[in-house]
Amino acid sequence: MSESWRPDVLRELRRIVGAERVLTSPEDLYVFGYDGTPLLHHAPRAVVDITSAEQLPPLLQAANQLGFAVIPRGSGSGLSGGSVPVDDAVVVVLSRLNRILEIDEPNLTALVEPGVITQTLHEAVEARGLFYPPDPGSGKICSLGGNVAENSGGLRGLKYGVTKDYVLGLEVVLPSGEVTWSGNKCVKDAAGYDLKHLFVGSEGTLGIFTKILLKLIPRPPAKQTMVAYFDTMRHAAEAVSAIIAARVIPATLEFLDQTTMQCVEAYAQLGLNLSYGALLLIEVDGHAAVVADEAARVMEVCRAHQAREISQAADAAEAARMAAARRVAFTALARLRPTTILEDATVPRSAVPAMIDVIEECSRKYQLQIGTFGHAGDGNLHPTFLVDERDASELERVEQAFGDIFRGALALGGTITGEHGTGTVKMPFLKLQYNEPTIQTMRQLKEVLDPNRILNPGKVIEPGTRLQEPLLRDVAD
Amino acid sequence: MSESWRPDVLRELRRIVGAERVLTSPEDLYVFGYDGTPLLHHAPRAVVDITSAEQLPPLLQAANQLGFAVIPRGSGSGLSGGSVPVDDAVVVVLSRLNRILEIDEPNLTALVEPGVITQTLHEAVEARGLFYPPDPGSGKICSLGGNVAENSGGLRGLKYGVTKDYVLGLEVVLPSGEVTWSGNKCVKDAAGYDLKHLFVGSEGTLGIFTKILLKLIPRPPAKQTMVAYFDTMRHAAEAVSAIIAARVIPATLEFLDQTTMQCVEAYAQLGLNLSYGALLLIEVDGHAAVVADEAARVMEVCRAHQAREISQAADAAEAARMAAARRVAFTALARLRPTTILEDATVPRSAVPAMIDVIEECSRKYQLQIGTFGHAGDGNLHPTFLVDERDASELERVEQAFGDIFRGALALGGTITGEHGTGTVKMPFLKLQYNEPTIQTMRQLKEVLDPNRILNPGKVIEPGTRLQEPLLRDVAD
Repeated sequence: MSESWRPDVLRELRRIVGAERVLTSPEDLYVFGYDGTPLLHHAPRAVVDITSAEQLPPLLQAANQLGFAVIPRGSGSGLSGGSVPVDDAVVVVLSRLNRILEIDEPNLTALVEPGVITQTLHEAVEARGLFYPPDPGSGKICSLGGNVAENSGGLRGLKYGVTKDYVLGLEVVLPSGEVTWSGNKCVKDAAGYDLKHLFVGSEGTLGIFTKILLKLIPRPPAKQTMVAYFDTMRHAAEAVSAIIAARVIPATLEFLDQTTMQCVEAYAQLGLNLSYGALLLIEVDGHAAVVADEAARVMEVCRAHQAREISQAADAAEAARMAAARRVAFTALARLRPTTILEDATVPRSAVPAMIDVIEECSRKYQLQIGTFGHAGDGNLHPTFLVDERDASELERVEQAFGDIFRGALALGGTITGEHGTGTVKMPFLKLQYNEPTIQTMRQLKEVLDPNRILNPGKVIEPGTRLQEPLLRDVAD
Repeated sequence: MSESWRPDVLRELRRIVGAERVLTSPEDLYVFGYDGTPLLHHAPRAVVDITSAEQLPPLLQAANQLGFAVIPRGSGSGLSGGSVPVDDAVVVVLSRLNRILEIDEPNLTALVEPGVITQTLHEAVEARGLFYPPDPGSGKICSLGGNVAENSGGLRGLKYGVTKDYVLGLEVVLPSGEVTWSGNKCVKDAAGYDLKHLFVGSEGTLGIFTKILLKLIPRPPAKQTMVAYFDTMRHAAEAVSAIIAARVIPATLEFLDQTTMQCVEAYAQLGLNLSYGALLLIEVDGHAAVVADEAARVMEVCRAHQAREISQAADAAEAARMAAARRVAFTALARLRPTTILEDATVPRSAVPAMIDVIEECSRKYQLQIGTFGHAGDGNLHPTFLVDERDASELERVEQAFGDIFRGALALGGTITGEHGTGTVKMPFLKLQYNEPTIQTMRQLKEVLDPNRILNPGKVIEPGTRLQEPLLRDVAD
């Protein structure tokens, strides 16, 4: 039993949220030691399942006074270890703060609590002819608080941008327990510093979001889904560049390599043609006339760039089947071997062919099975390593390959993470992307807002000394 | 002569940039004591006309060591006093850093120096079929560094957003003189904190931008310009809401009240029909089929909402003439009386009719002549006070009216500034918009980045104690 841990803290937690909302059984602590990141686990000392945002200020004040770490957590689907606890940590679960407080049609905004599931908001606004574009792959289970904390991307980034492009306002409980609000329903606001955009992507280290004001747009009235097959990933990537060069910006422009295609077909029997080396999934949306015109141009460009087979969805059911090939990619790959490690090194669109070369070279050099799929249109690739965590030598090679991939992405003008965040697993590589004054500035922002290091410590820019089970040694040295 | 001021500082400035680039004559100091803000003037002690970004780090280091204020300045067209000097200040002019370093067509980005004039970038990218949407009213003269510092908006905010939506990366010289870079050409980047968006809109108080990476989009292939007349501003505002409710998002949705229409017609003889009380200028753009469809819907909605007269531009010349009515509004109003004070209180779109009532009530209550025009589609109004600065009683009433207008905008869920920034003139009102912890957080960010208060002190969130000629007393108390 964890009752031996800090009775003063447990007593205070129970006082704030009620005894029944403080979980301390080994089973509970065990499951809250994970998020969606492979190979990371560290159990908290207690889990607090809050029911009201008003419980957060006293909770954070107690953390400062008594000295314990607070780990904010939504659905726990993160992929960089952002909600995996550190030593002596209390996990605060925000899932019950899950109300859509307002959908304001005249002003095209939605006000939500952090625990609202992304897909729930999608459905609620689409029912009114509106659209919330950010569409992370985990949309069915992830929550909007987590989306804002990680600046989630997804399948529509190319045309519509990512979560930060839709955050109009945030109510944030600071590490001190004080409550701030920045932003409003205005399209334009130049008053003071733009605090909300500092909090977006701060991965639960600078504050806990309790209300989120999101921008909506009119729902695109029409869309067309297409699939094109190519002999190689390089050909597919060249077609992607040619589509953009033709000034068509598809809503979705995704690809799968042959490994992924094979796994998807084995898993979901979608009728993919496995004789080709790569598949592009393309979706154009908007006004019906634009959709027809852009679909025709996309088909033409693909044909001119060595597409071996192209098809357009005849109806919504076929479109859904085509899109499923991409949606199930991760699940399908995960069946192949015991451990699945999804990466998200990202490069400028024009560097996608070169980045594919880097990944293929890693596969050869380190003898690793890698299935690659991802958001080709925005240069956000997901090389997915299929390994067995019990094989220490294989994990060692994975580590080396990650180093090559991140260095490769940065050499091509990219980033070590397009949409999964820094968390703990990318922290060692941050200094490859930013110079020392830039990292020092990030660190200063954390220190000034959280001088006692109580809010999600050991993440993003803090030395990970308090973490016990890092996936990666500091290979960036 | 200012030579009596700090020979140690002047010697150091001359060493860094060369003697010919340090201006100290009274004439030079006098003109650099202004920006575009009425009633504000304070001459600097020296003006440094730099020729290379590499001169900035030693200059800022000298400021920290010797203790003088550095005021970064682009074209000086700001409207909130952001580049007006404080005591013992050295103005650093960035206008000569004016190269467009790269236009990257495959990745849809432009890399520019801060002194590039906004319109110069517009022309350069449009010549290649690309588009940089932010379009501040001062676009012919303002520079992109200033646009980023002020998070400039303009006429296309409703559909395309504002400057911050287009900043992909920034090279920033910190107050310490250290150089940071954040961002890249990737659509998605989740590595570390989003520093660049803290610097956007920081009004020269947190760092000086030396390279700016901007997002471009394909140039909309077609557009249609329309003008609709209404009996009252309220009718026009209701038509605006109805257009959005019909799920049409025009690129431009501007209005002029009757005072502004009369001034515009007297100034530019555009053939406006002065028998009506308000004019809407509407521009839809995009794919030709969408433009035709949306233009038809806009006309239909306007007719259904009591438009008295509607016309579509038959050709580009007529469209330009229609758009000119809005473009010359400020200049036309400025001819009427000696002093023109442009405000930019902004509200959610649905509150525009209520905000117009607030402005009209101010005009009556304080017996002030106010011409109102602005960006109706994004709730960003420009009530323009036509006064005589030699009339102390009139200025006193203007002050009171500002208080009413800002309180009114905030009560309607708006902001004290949509696009002009806080600078010095809005600083007293910031505490009406944000609670104390929010302002304290902004202040902490400034303090941690600029502990010696050398970079544009007395602006945005710092008490204005060093300013000598404030326009406004602290009426927010």
